Amino acid sequence: MQGEPDVAVLRLGHRPGRDDRMTTHVGLTARALGADRVIYPENATDAVETVRDITDRFGGPFDVARTDEQHATIRDWEGTVVHLTMYGEQIQAVEAEIRERHASQSLLVVVGSEKVPFSVYEEADWNVGVTNQPHSEVAGLAVFLDRLYDGRELDREWTDAESRVVPRETGKRVVDTE
Amino acid sequence: MQGEPDVAVLRLGHRPGRDDRMTTHVGLTARALGADRVIYPENATDAVETVRDITDRFGGPFDVARTDEQHATIRDWEGTVVHLTMYGEQIQAVEAEIRERHASQSLLVVVGSEKVPFSVYEEADWNVGVTNQPHSEVAGLAVFLDRLYDGRELDREWTDAESRVVPRETGKRVVDTE
Repeated sequence: MQGEPDVAVLRLGHRPGRDDRMTTHVGLTARALGADRVIYPENATDAVETVRDITDRFGGPFDVARTDEQHATIRDWEGTVVHLTMYGEQIQAVEAEIRERHASQSLLVVVGSEKVPFSVYEEADWNVGVTNQPHSEVAGLAVFLDRLYDGRELDREWTDAESRVVPRETGKRVVDTE
Repeated sequence: MQGEPDVAVLRLGHRPGRDDRMTTHVGLTARALGADRVIYPENATDAVETVRDITDRFGGPFDVARTDEQHATIRDWEGTVVHLTMYGEQIQAVEAEIRERHASQSLLVVVGSEKVPFSVYEEADWNVGVTNQPHSEVAGLAVFLDRLYDGRELDREWTDAESRVVPRETGKRVVDTE
């Protein structure tokens, strides 16, 4: 979020077709819950387009980057690398330390899809499990970001939005912001 | 979770093929993050099978129910109904009240996929937005459950598991529990 060290979410691996929606949801969740950027593999064209479109309509700042050098991005990251995995340390045990580190350093959050190579486990500063149960990389990312920001992300402000949803008890209300 | 009023997650609508993974992830997230049950539409056969299989392997209690009477389930629910939607009230504004209600009443959490009929907005006790941004029903469910249980779900115990993941700093460790 603005005024804090950067948080980027790297989607590791993507199978076009099969992973399109999950990969898109990783990017939309990153945006909605306070990250500054998603880094997609080059072949994630659908996800790139959808997340950019949502950012145009509902605001930013949020950046969508693409690379085929995902492993180099992890290896060369200047800052802290957190890999979300059901095999990792429990989030409730390590979140305070990660929050403290993020106060002064940018953070790369790695979200896998297919089998993640062992080198990623080694290169991460933390391997973190949002539970040690199999569930969803999108769910894990959401809980991680909500805890990283301690709920502050829910109050973030959006700039350059065309539309804004007004919270309502019942029904839908969307207003033009122009 | 055991020792607390029931929490059931109802997946509203499912398009076989297109929604298979999202619908599966709704169920797996419900299970991993403390809900007691997922209620799927009859046509969500893949998701039913996967969530039951994961429960067999990694433990329960967690129940997978199926119905084609989803709207009747909402209408006739004896307890509180929360509908997660980007158009709803902000979670940070209503979560304390919902937690208090859940202390004495069972909770049905409705998670939409395609266009949700207006009647669902009317029948819900709360329409709740985990942000008023478009992102992911799986992410919204995850943050909602983590806040509902105030993190207690991360310490829940599993029974009748065949396997258990042991949290590790690096790499993977899965043990047989038999």
